[in-house]
Amino acid sequence: MILRIDRLQTPLPPPSDPDPAGAAAVQELLGGRFGEMSTLMNYTFQSFNFRNRQGARPFYDLVANIAAEEYGHIELVAATINTMLTGATPLDSAPDPTDTPLAGVKGVGNFHHFLKGGQGALPADSIGSPWTGDYVFSSGDLIEDLTHNFFLETGARQGKLKVYEMVDHPAARALTGYLLIRGGVHQVAYARALENLTGANLMKLFPSPRIPTEKIPECRPHLETGEHRKLYRFSPNDYREIVAVFNGPHPETGEELIVVDEAPSGAPANDLPQQPAVFAPDYAPEEISAIAQKLRKAAGLPDEPTGEVANANGGLIGKVKEKLT
Amino acid sequence: MILRIDRLQTPLPPPSDPDPAGAAAVQELLGGRFGEMSTLMNYTFQSFNFRNRQGARPFYDLVANIAAEEYGHIELVAATINTMLTGATPLDSAPDPTDTPLAGVKGVGNFHHFLKGGQGALPADSIGSPWTGDYVFSSGDLIEDLTHNFFLETGARQGKLKVYEMVDHPAARALTGYLLIRGGVHQVAYARALENLTGANLMKLFPSPRIPTEKIPECRPHLETGEHRKLYRFSPNDYREIVAVFNGPHPETGEELIVVDEAPSGAPANDLPQQPAVFAPDYAPEEISAIAQKLRKAAGLPDEPTGEVANANGGLIGKVKEKLT
Amino acid sequence: MILRIDRLQTPLPPPSDPDPAGAAAVQELLGGRFGEMSTLMNYTFQSFNFRNRQGARPFYDLVANIAAEEYGHIELVAATINTMLTGATPLDSAPDPTDTPLAGVKGVGNFHHFLKGGQGALPADSIGSPWTGDYVFSSGDLIEDLTHNFFLETGARQGKLKVYEMVDHPAARALTGYLLIRGGVHQVAYARALENLTGANLMKLFPSPRIPTEKIPECRPHLETGEHRKLYRFSPNDYREIVAVFNGPHPETGEELIVVDEAPSGAPANDLPQQPAVFAPDYAPEEISAIAQKLRKAAGLPDEPTGEVANANGGLIGKVKEKLT
Amino acid sequence: MILRIDRLQTPLPPPSDPDPAGAAAVQELLGGRFGEMSTLMNYTFQSFNFRNRQGARPFYDLVANIAAEEYGHIELVAATINTMLTGATPLDSAPDPTDTPLAGVKGVGNFHHFLKGGQGALPADSIGSPWTGDYVFSSGDLIEDLTHNFFLETGARQGKLKVYEMVDHPAARALTGYLLIRGGVHQVAYARALENLTGANLMKLFPSPRIPTEKIPECRPHLETGEHRKLYRFSPNDYREIVAVFNGPHPETGEELIVVDEAPSGAPANDLPQQPAVFAPDYAPEEISAIAQKLRKAAGLPDEPTGEVANANGGLIGKVKEKLT
Amino acid sequence: MILRIDRLQTPLPPPSDPDPAGAAAVQELLGGRFGEMSTLMNYTFQSFNFRNRQGARPFYDLVANIAAEEYGHIELVAATINTMLTGATPLDSAPDPTDTPLAGVKGVGNFHHFLKGGQGALPADSIGSPWTGDYVFSSGDLIEDLTHNFFLETGARQGKLKVYEMVDHPAARALTGYLLIRGGVHQVAYARALENLTGANLMKLFPSPRIPTEKIPECRPHLETGEHRKLYRFSPNDYREIVAVFNGPHPETGEELIVVDEAPSGAPANDLPQQPAVFAPDYAPEEISAIAQKLRKAAGLPDEPTGEVANANGGLIGKVKEKLT
Amino acid sequence: MILRIDRLQTPLPPPSDPDPAGAAAVQELLGGRFGEMSTLMNYTFQSFNFRNRQGARPFYDLVANIAAEEYGHIELVAATINTMLTGATPLDSAPDPTDTPLAGVKGVGNFHHFLKGGQGALPADSIGSPWTGDYVFSSGDLIEDLTHNFFLETGARQGKLKVYEMVDHPAARALTGYLLIRGGVHQVAYARALENLTGANLMKLFPSPRIPTEKIPECRPHLETGEHRKLYRFSPNDYREIVAVFNGPHPETGEELIVVDEAPSGAPANDLPQQPAVFAPDYAPEEISAIAQKLRKAAGLPDEPTGEVANANGGLIGKVKEKLT
Repeated sequence: MILRIDRLQTPLPPPSDPDPAGAAAVQELLGGRFGEMSTLMNYTFQSFNFRNRQGARPFYDLVANIAAEEYGHIELVAATINTMLTGATPLDSAPDPTDTPLAGVKGVGNFHHFLKGGQGALPADSIGSPWTGDYVFSSGDLIEDLTHNFFLETGARQGKLKVYEMVDHPAARALTGYLLIRGGVHQVAYARALENLTGANLMKLFPSPRIPTEKIPECRPHLETGEHRKLYRFSPNDYREIVAVFNGPHPETGEELIVVDEAPSGAPANDLPQQPAVFAPDYAPEEISAIAQKLRKAAGLPDEPTGEVANANGGLIGKVKEKLT
Repeated sequence: MILRIDRLQTPLPPPSDPDPAGAAAVQELLGGRFGEMSTLMNYTFQSFNFRNRQGARPFYDLVANIAAEEYGHIELVAATINTMLTGATPLDSAPDPTDTPLAGVKGVGNFHHFLKGGQGALPADSIGSPWTGDYVFSSGDLIEDLTHNFFLETGARQGKLKVYEMVDHPAARALTGYLLIRGGVHQVAYARALENLTGANLMKLFPSPRIPTEKIPECRPHLETGEHRKLYRFSPNDYREIVAVFNGPHPETGEELIVVDEAPSGAPANDLPQQPAVFAPDYAPEEISAIAQKLRKAAGLPDEPTGEVANANGGLIGKVKEKLT
Repeated sequence: MILRIDRLQTPLPPPSDPDPAGAAAVQELLGGRFGEMSTLMNYTFQSFNFRNRQGARPFYDLVANIAAEEYGHIELVAATINTMLTGATPLDSAPDPTDTPLAGVKGVGNFHHFLKGGQGALPADSIGSPWTGDYVFSSGDLIEDLTHNFFLETGARQGKLKVYEMVDHPAARALTGYLLIRGGVHQVAYARALENLTGANLMKLFPSPRIPTEKIPECRPHLETGEHRKLYRFSPNDYREIVAVFNGPHPETGEELIVVDEAPSGAPANDLPQQPAVFAPDYAPEEISAIAQKLRKAAGLPDEPTGEVANANGGLIGKVKEKLT
Repeated sequence: MILRIDRLQTPLPPPSDPDPAGAAAVQELLGGRFGEMSTLMNYTFQSFNFRNRQGARPFYDLVANIAAEEYGHIELVAATINTMLTGATPLDSAPDPTDTPLAGVKGVGNFHHFLKGGQGALPADSIGSPWTGDYVFSSGDLIEDLTHNFFLETGARQGKLKVYEMVDHPAARALTGYLLIRGGVHQVAYARALENLTGANLMKLFPSPRIPTEKIPECRPHLETGEHRKLYRFSPNDYREIVAVFNGPHPETGEELIVVDEAPSGAPANDLPQQPAVFAPDYAPEEISAIAQKLRKAAGLPDEPTGEVANANGGLIGKVKEKLT
Repeated sequence: MILRIDRLQTPLPPPSDPDPAGAAAVQELLGGRFGEMSTLMNYTFQSFNFRNRQGARPFYDLVANIAAEEYGHIELVAATINTMLTGATPLDSAPDPTDTPLAGVKGVGNFHHFLKGGQGALPADSIGSPWTGDYVFSSGDLIEDLTHNFFLETGARQGKLKVYEMVDHPAARALTGYLLIRGGVHQVAYARALENLTGANLMKLFPSPRIPTEKIPECRPHLETGEHRKLYRFSPNDYREIVAVFNGPHPETGEELIVVDEAPSGAPANDLPQQPAVFAPDYAPEEISAIAQKLRKAAGLPDEPTGEVANANGGLIGKVKEKLT
Repeated sequence: MILRIDRLQTPLPPPSDPDPAGAAAVQELLGGRFGEMSTLMNYTFQSFNFRNRQGARPFYDLVANIAAEEYGHIELVAATINTMLTGATPLDSAPDPTDTPLAGVKGVGNFHHFLKGGQGALPADSIGSPWTGDYVFSSGDLIEDLTHNFFLETGARQGKLKVYEMVDHPAARALTGYLLIRGGVHQVAYARALENLTGANLMKLFPSPRIPTEKIPECRPHLETGEHRKLYRFSPNDYREIVAVFNGPHPETGEELIVVDEAPSGAPANDLPQQPAVFAPDYAPEEISAIAQKLRKAAGLPDEPTGEVANANGGLIGKVKEKLT
């Protein structure tokens, strides 16, 4: 089971200029075959289905713990998409429907972001095809599963690099810069596990694709703080045997791999503003706020919401802010 | 992001008689349209996509927190399926392939449990159709999403009851008994949220389907400990405003609804034994164990695995135990 | 638009012995690529999308009118499946769930008939794959669409013959006997339309598959009443120009083709009994009946239901009847 | 079975400016999860699978009768899409293919409208994903099915509003204005049925989404004639017990709900003109017209087509008309 | 089994101006329901599944041999798409990712061409839906399969004509000009086979769609060399009995049909240049070339590659060439 | 393009006892994610999409040439399935449909083998899910594609081993014995290519799954003739540079790898007998034979079919033979 923490693993910039076509591209990293839904669910099911856990504990712990980190990745990609969609329609409450407030996004990006969702992320890829359980590989054969996972991470790295090259929205760049680093750690971890089991030296395949990570400016701050060689333990008390696998030198830098015995502290998410034309969270959201306030009071909670967010009012900047009358 | 705890929310019995056809049926509760993958991913995406969180914090906290509980549910269903599949093929290491060790499951249950997976759970339904992102409804419209969630939980309740009626394997019964109770809590929570927002009294639709929960013997222990009226807070520090929504009387019993300010303690999972004929975790798993032991020692870990499991040797009983020479 | 008539185009026998595996097979005729959902939706969409109707009126009328008949065919197939599923689980009200009342259908036929549906027909094929809009061909090119339709009907004929050969349940035999005749009329109609437009003599392809219709005993009564050469006009006032296409000799018998200027009178459907273990229409359906009776009275309706059905109590016979305590 | 009437339930404007991207958006209302194919097929299958009809006749009649109305809705959406696509390619007969007559729609809207179809509606959604039988919920449990139907209608209302906000083509606006009204009637009907069965007051959820219907100018004429509180009986003689459920006050206006004992009179459809570049109905359609005329004569039909259409020559106006040399 | 020849069946022009939206359209001819993957796999599976081959040898040979030709068609369509995508991103080695080198294709054509593939063809249609085995019809009934194949070829002809009308890129025009001719031969072949078996004269349906092939300028050179009446034998020694079916006059021209007792000589493919921004074949492809050269030498191969291609450096012309610094 | 040879790469035994459930299992090797359709289409598309072929010729030749071999593999799997299905229904011509000749296969194996196909192989997996283009990975990045291919072959090996363990039908055993050997060659080839490009020693992962190939008796004859270390060149004149990559010692045996400069000679296929109850190739196939004979004569062909098959009359043995009256 899990405990959930209402923070992102890395901070994201607040909404600036909307980019619905870019948001459609970023979906590939969420619901594509090599997106984060896939890494999350592959490792999650492999850990569920792991037989003889006690006999192979270090490997079970490794897969189960990386699965936990991946949850934070789908959260980050979704937050990025939501940020990029913010402002693509008017922000004012109770918009006049006869003004055709969605006209500006007709034929731009993915229709489903607006017609199905409320300018929100979808469990789908860049052309709107839904993520499917067919993307999960869980053979139960440990060496086979690890071979798959290594391949999956190289495919994921490729997707991140291409989205980086296609989309220059600040949120997308912050996202891909971070994910490239963390995905790289998982590539190393699975390569290391296979090396331990078979002697095969997959580290030589690094980096794959063969563009050095340091070429990406948004990766550099994370390289400087050593994120590329840290495996966090995402559990209060479990998965302690990851140290038995994740050790030795990093294949690109030669630095020692490190297990960090807790989760990263992360950062609060932006409170993304309402989009009333798509009824998110309502056509006239102030009614919901009023009810919430009343309930909060009745329950003895403080007047101010107890949850922490990065920015009041969504921290709107740039064109998005101008749009809000 | 999440922290993962290596325990199940409720204990499951150890493997006894294998039931591959029953395991195929239970898949409906995992990857079916109304299965736990759906409840997990619906609430997870709704929480990701929630706009104006501060203004509607009690509702955001409710959805996000229930999403966290659902992760434990997919874990439970997967563990049940794995338990039911255990022993369906020989348990001995390095089986002779010319003995046709999978002959006994040819045409029984779902081929994919054996040909794709390693006698392990699939993100698919009872006929093997993969779970798909199309099952996620995340409109961004709070009232709409809650209406959906209430409906989703009634569909889920129906599935659990029917699986209960079809499968009498002890693990399946323990599972459905527990899930019926917890799903009921979520039905109540969403009904209550809608009542707060609109005044609609969906509580009157209880129970749906109209078979009283207390008719299920496996539900009764949970009713006695009050699980049917407790909403756990699955977070170290967040989602505190669920108390503003989850309160008032239970629609079936009239007892007061309760927020429990932590996660349930749960129980360790069984360590399900190897199934070497499907290479889970290997054709001759003792090699993996030997490597693991060496790595453990090199990392300064104790000789015994640090992870806790419910039963040594998978706690095999009944026919499964006899099979193991 | 349509008017609906609460009658079947041909009578079906009441439930006798349940046949869940046979019901799964019959699904191919409902939701398979060549099933009745396909014939219905192909002709329906072709009629919707027909350009220059006035200029090509006889052909528009032909396609639109056959589409109307096909609606009655999906109704018939669904009724057959429902008949065959009746009695596969206990018929008594409020069954004890701990008796595992669905145990008898675990692994028999299609799980979805019981776990998703209430022993009811699905818009899916014999392996449970859902019918999809991809099965609709509507190119807008009249000759192309008619070529498709002719091919579709030959594929449909093959499916009916094979289901006939696989399933000997009386309802399935009554169904296929009737559909073979009616589908044959549509084959002739489309061949005739193509002949008018191009001179191609597709009539020579009859029968396809090359098994004479008269070999099927259940077809013979319909052959005797001439159903194989009648095209009914399924409309109060429209589609009158079908007479301009549907004329000339029948390719197998040489008899003259006939347009009947109204719909067939048909027969009332059986009122299939409750299946409380799958909650159809409820766990304890007598409550619904009591409410219905009250509403009926309040609305000034007679005590007896105003709708006509073929048999009181579903007209149960054989094993099904014995089961009902 | 059905009788088909060659009229639309509400009049649509003739083709004016083509809007292929808008037509792609409108597809969501036809083949999307909450589109009219879904409402049609959900209620149709629920009526097919309804057990114990006599005991629950008012509810059976309600579902079966609404299903009949929905057929007219898929017809309307298809007609709208076809109207919006008209003129997107040249209208003249036998166009020169080397002029690249489809160049103007390359990358605009949905490729399938032109490459698969003949500028015609598809059983697919706004991104071209085909409608699927997976969208049908037919549990057999009456209360469950009605809960679903209520939810389905709220989802459908949301889709209609969003398409309204995205597309200002006159045909799309006429369509959504009408469908919002009729879908609202169905929401009320299902809420009322649930209230009768359980006492739950879903009327309080109105309107959902929370934008008042009267805000939509195209709804107002229908509100004035009371369409929002009328349930038509779409059958010559059946489904008479709908009066037992559809009664009481309208949740938004308080006016009394009314059963109209016949179908609406509707309006003839436009005869949409040929699109020869996509071979609809032919590359040189005048040949088909000539053949049709000959057949009509041979069959003793009048020279003029017997079917009624709204406008000679498709009633082209605006840019579309100018295009026709 | 097969022998593969590294040549195209017809020459294609070298890359000139990139046309990603056009490339998306051409995908319909590769992975659409009526695309070349479908013709290839339909005939291939029909030949695999052909029962009583000796008794029906001329028909088996016909289907098996046409299947062989179709392989060359998927190769041609893929080469066309790859040609049209060439130059859509920078051609220089090791591009700077911060320059957003894929920005120019964001929202143009199919995202998957860039995010999943390396500017390469996909087994998918014009909206990115993957080709599926559901498109294969292989009933085993010879007359039925031939009827299908005739219909399939008419659908394929329609697709080719529409792509021709939408896309004027030289590669697309060369492709469709050639495929129209070859597909026409297959239409004739299947019509002829059906005529032999049943007497039905499907030749009268020619051409379908009813636009004469000679209207397409790119078809004319092939008409002049008689490609429209030649069936090549794609085998060293087998399928000799095609002569028993493919004979008689051509339905459009009256000329005699001819069997050519070998495969066409074809033409070498262009060596399409690297696209390093999508890592095809690498971020810095010169490293691969250096390794290849070393391996070639070590294996005693000549310094120059042994394979023949149409153009050094991909024969770039027009805008594509200018882009290459 | 290709030339097709009407022979199998390895001989298969004639039909003996039918095994429809086993045939369903074997489908996983044809249309499953790791089946032969996948290996064929992955390598085929990768070769189509290969950029800068001249610069990387040895690698292009390797992928293109292995693709050619895979065609023979789908042919072999299909032939196996067809063999196993033979005799599952009566073999006599013109069977009486009222005898329910398909009753014996109702609910056994895959309904589609009988209701859609003519006891013939499907492009689908063991549960009937169609093969899809989504299974093709063609990133254009050479190292990435090779990493994928290595992983794909390990997944394929697993599938073959499991089918071997589940099905003991002689045809299935002959098939898997052969495919295990040939797939092993491809694993080695891709590992060797990656080693050349990066230095990574994937050979250490052999065998994967970790069951030695020599444990399978049906592999041993092929091991003895050295099939496990031979790469055949499947082309009259091309793909000569495979020698630059496929060389060095075999990872399991240490023997030298060998390129064979031609295709294997193979063996003729069995002429599988008619199955008239499913109309394959007809309800009364002797009519087709008579027509074929007439056509053969008219074309000047010898009286005996010119094609070679393994066995007259399909070489029926065992139960199948007894069935034929």
